[in-house]
Amino acid sequence: MTPAVESLQAALQWRYATKQFDATARIAPDLWAALEQSLVLSPSSYGLQPWKFLLIEDEELRQQLRPHAWNQSQITDASHLVVFLARRRIDSDDLERLITATASARSLAPEKLEFYRDMMRKDLIDGPRSEQIERWASNQVYIALGTFLTAAALLAVDTCPIEGFSPAEFDRLLELEGGPYRSCVVCAAGYRAAGDPYAALAKVRYPAAELIERR
Amino acid sequence: MTPAVESLQAALQWRYATKQFDATARIAPDLWAALEQSLVLSPSSYGLQPWKFLLIEDEELRQQLRPHAWNQSQITDASHLVVFLARRRIDSDDLERLITATASARSLAPEKLEFYRDMMRKDLIDGPRSEQIERWASNQVYIALGTFLTAAALLAVDTCPIEGFSPAEFDRLLELEGGPYRSCVVCAAGYRAAGDPYAALAKVRYPAAELIERR
Repeated sequence: MTPAVESLQAALQWRYATKQFDATARIAPDLWAALEQSLVLSPSSYGLQPWKFLLIEDEELRQQLRPHAWNQSQITDASHLVVFLARRRIDSDDLERLITATASARSLAPEKLEFYRDMMRKDLIDGPRSEQIERWASNQVYIALGTFLTAAALLAVDTCPIEGFSPAEFDRLLELEGGPYRSCVVCAAGYRAAGDPYAALAKVRYPAAELIERR
Repeated sequence: MTPAVESLQAALQWRYATKQFDATARIAPDLWAALEQSLVLSPSSYGLQPWKFLLIEDEELRQQLRPHAWNQSQITDASHLVVFLARRRIDSDDLERLITATASARSLAPEKLEFYRDMMRKDLIDGPRSEQIERWASNQVYIALGTFLTAAALLAVDTCPIEGFSPAEFDRLLELEGGPYRSCVVCAAGYRAAGDPYAALAKVRYPAAELIERR
């Protein structure tokens, strides 16, 4: 086994949905910077990045959010709390933004990217996928979540992804109502408390033979 | 920077959506085993694993699938092709399966897990989320996709996630119609062709200051 395989497998085995965070343990700034970078570098369909990541630092705001997430202690105790936002819809401004960024990063005339803009427009704005755009945007956000959870595990940072919250209340408290983004999923990050009983529980996974089928 | 941070950042920078795979380059079996393991160990809400992963090995089947994915060469040329399947709905059998596996992995009497079953039932079967269960299951599958893409990059395996395919035609060819799973997203894995022009293009990402907001 190569060292890369070994550290990947160890990280994925070590990871679990942390229930009790050590409220005094903070993620070091350089480590956190690497995790922010993993969010920025997450893949998305067409590279459209239909997301934003709110890092909730204000203690009082965390206290206000907590009752709208089944009062889970992770909301206030974890070192870092990220609310993953998804774009509510995709319009021509989104395409323009990506075309401009692409032309700039690759030193191209934007006109050279017209086929790319057309392809996205026909799929996401005029095509059948436009009717499911919230779902499409959510899917992309969950790629970022998967990337973040894996990246954190590799850096020995504990996480707890949280779907058990009220998006409506979060949107209200985070002043997202009427804006282009909505609360999609939440993730707490930090370090497990010494006493978290969940840390010691065996991981439950169906056998590979049931999950992976060859055709 | 720690070695873990360095290799993570290098992997995420190195990764791109590979357009041309080297059709002769195969992922070594032990490396592929590690990637399968990353699928099995992917996190999911409640640990419900509402997914299955079809590894398409049959060359003829790949040829048949290709026209239903915009004729993209990745479908036939990549070393490995995975169709990520999502469960169409969640019923009491799914909960039973998880409770049984959990009781067995953790040496508990299944009765001790009744609260857990109730919580899932109230959310996913009787609750408001039941109306959006396809979306919920898709989201989970995309966590697995994010995990897989990141794991592959860490092992220097190239990937191309593919949303541009016809789920209806894939379901037909993969004989999934009427079954409990549906085609959700596709991912090709292998090694980039020496001549893939996309490999050299600068990565396009919005600035961290636009994507990450502090509150």
